Amino acid sequence: MKLPTKTPVSESLLALVGQSVQAIDTPALVIDLDAMTRNLARMADFARKHDVRWRAHAKMHKSSAIARLQMQAGAVGVCVQKTSEAEAMVAGGVTDVYISNEVIAPHKLARVAGLAHMLAAGNGKLSIAVDSIEGVTRLATAMNDAQGQHPKGPIATIDVFVEIDVGQGRCGVTPGEAAVVLAHEIRKHPALRFAGLQAYHGKAQHLRGARERRDAIAVVVDDVVHTRKLIEAEGIPVELVTGAGTGSMVCEAASGVYGELQSGSFLFMDADYAQNEGDPAQPNFEHALFVKTQVMSTCATHAVCDAGHKSHAIDSGLPRVHTFDSEAALEYSNGGDEHGILRAAGANTRLPALGRFLWLIPGHCDPTVNLHDVMIGVTGGLRSGTVERIIRVDARGALT
Amino acid sequence: MKLPTKTPVSESLLALVGQSVQAIDTPALVIDLDAMTRNLARMADFARKHDVRWRAHAKMHKSSAIARLQMQAGAVGVCVQKTSEAEAMVAGGVTDVYISNEVIAPHKLARVAGLAHMLAAGNGKLSIAVDSIEGVTRLATAMNDAQGQHPKGPIATIDVFVEIDVGQGRCGVTPGEAAVVLAHEIRKHPALRFAGLQAYHGKAQHLRGARERRDAIAVVVDDVVHTRKLIEAEGIPVELVTGAGTGSMVCEAASGVYGELQSGSFLFMDADYAQNEGDPAQPNFEHALFVKTQVMSTCATHAVCDAGHKSHAIDSGLPRVHTFDSEAALEYSNGGDEHGILRAAGANTRLPALGRFLWLIPGHCDPTVNLHDVMIGVTGGLRSGTVERIIRVDARGALT
Repeated sequence: MKLPTKTPVSESLLALVGQSVQAIDTPALVIDLDAMTRNLARMADFARKHDVRWRAHAKMHKSSAIARLQMQAGAVGVCVQKTSEAEAMVAGGVTDVYISNEVIAPHKLARVAGLAHMLAAGNGKLSIAVDSIEGVTRLATAMNDAQGQHPKGPIATIDVFVEIDVGQGRCGVTPGEAAVVLAHEIRKHPALRFAGLQAYHGKAQHLRGARERRDAIAVVVDDVVHTRKLIEAEGIPVELVTGAGTGSMVCEAASGVYGELQSGSFLFMDADYAQNEGDPAQPNFEHALFVKTQVMSTCATHAVCDAGHKSHAIDSGLPRVHTFDSEAALEYSNGGDEHGILRAAGANTRLPALGRFLWLIPGHCDPTVNLHDVMIGVTGGLRSGTVERIIRVDARGALT
Repeated sequence: MKLPTKTPVSESLLALVGQSVQAIDTPALVIDLDAMTRNLARMADFARKHDVRWRAHAKMHKSSAIARLQMQAGAVGVCVQKTSEAEAMVAGGVTDVYISNEVIAPHKLARVAGLAHMLAAGNGKLSIAVDSIEGVTRLATAMNDAQGQHPKGPIATIDVFVEIDVGQGRCGVTPGEAAVVLAHEIRKHPALRFAGLQAYHGKAQHLRGARERRDAIAVVVDDVVHTRKLIEAEGIPVELVTGAGTGSMVCEAASGVYGELQSGSFLFMDADYAQNEGDPAQPNFEHALFVKTQVMSTCATHAVCDAGHKSHAIDSGLPRVHTFDSEAALEYSNGGDEHGILRAAGANTRLPALGRFLWLIPGHCDPTVNLHDVMIGVTGGLRSGTVERIIRVDARGALT
């Protein structure tokens, strides 16, 4: 049998710069760059007014190009959750990276230490979180081993934050004495620098009422203040408290306790955050991330589009169908891995025709971005705009 | 500032062939090749005994290497859901591909027609499903345009199946007259060959009771027989009825109506299918797909592992923690994008220690595979086995 010799069209060839938004293949992840730029300016302005640093979480966008844009707008660097995400960011030119998570595998810590040395040699910086003595000891061993490989190089250090569990119920030690023990432990090792506290309450971000979020973060702030006091009572300065996300950042920013905000989702927003009751102090962040999809089957009761949960994450609910002015709403329901089912939301809504393009607002931006190799950046709006740039999701699938 | 010059370690470097399973980085998608090989033999045996063809669904494994293994074991080819998946399979050497889904965008249909011509020239074959006159007309136009680009080449045709909606409530025309109309429409175009009926009831796969599944597929078979009779009454032969999946294939295989099974999940199985009440006629398929994960934080109440829903899909429920003989069960709960929370399932279960490896059985294999660039194939078991091969997920992210 003769085998094919022609190379098939690449599936990542979704659009070309300069083309109309109409030409973008479906399904594709599209950024409304105008809205994103406004969100970025609002965040920078918010941080300036509250005199806090912001270190945007790159676990959300997984793109070093976006990270560099954020740093140009005033972010001090990025957070990541994984060693391989840190590597992707550094490879993409980001030189101040904080792994806001625990790393425990020795071979991963060797990579962390290697990155720390590389960044230190380039006037950059790596930071990391810990929540166990074992974690501190292993990190120190890895840093010493890395130093041994560069005996004539400058002494490299890594900034270490003690994570306290302020309500998330995941990683972190109990606020109070356990954090003091870890701060002491970190200071035993010359290659480690105790940099402060990591205090992140992810669940509080998604409490629907603004008052509920304020109440939850008030408890968090009490925990942080109490823990900081205990550590400082030992003569150990707590330089920085880092944490917060888009949903609750107005509370952390106003606390006077947090020096750094880790908000990520503000840049794109998603259907889940849009369900939060607004807080008057919160900047008006807009939806900037969409899945462009096309109707590929119709019948009397429903239409079917070509975006299912391989195109968007559904951990925080199904996507919403974006409606332009005066359009009637459509309801999206789950059609499996590759399909979405569209039904009329009201009695007078007509089903979309075969071939029509629709724009979905994903339920949760972070894992949605992680499904795509590229994001298509458009300016001039979703109806008549133009493809301005193709942004590579260079930390996509960076899980380790 | 000096920028780093050393290339960071790639995140896809999860394991090397010949290494112990213990050395596989986490989180990683691991195939128990021994179990997979047994599943493959059971499927081939089942199809032989029931005298039906099987065309394994590659939307599940998204790997041309696995597709070729399946064809060596007797599969006639693969199904895919997307044009770009078809391209990835053909690029990987698979020469009989069925797009078991509708394609409506003219630029996609141009690619479909290009593939059909490429495969026909190599003694291969492309097939596709339709459910509208518009879809038939557009496909014919694309085939004619492609033929126009090869005026001296042999006349290429594409096999076209009419999809009927047998209960899935997604794509497909209503069983009966509407299918007859489409069969006639297909036969108007010399480049299209009416090949039969696509009748797939995905929801029936996941009905928990064996009796419920049998009842649901009995209705499906009635619909197929009725529709086939109407088409054949017009003098149009219905050569093949294709459909079925792992959950219900014993029913379709026994129907005498289906000539081809599209089962995909049997190869890996998942936690969702494991909840189905077994059918005595069903081969005993084993779990062969796992996410290897590591405990990276512990406290008095729970442990935290490094696999969250960026490592496994949760559309069909959370993963189960695999237990080896005599081990006590652990319960996995959602810890967000990058974490899993592990709790003791019984009063006497001890929480796993920091650094311990665990093996998760994903809730749904298809979208889980789509999160990973590679699958690590091991032989000799998950406890003391060896990495045998690294399998590229070459259609990962092929969404268009």
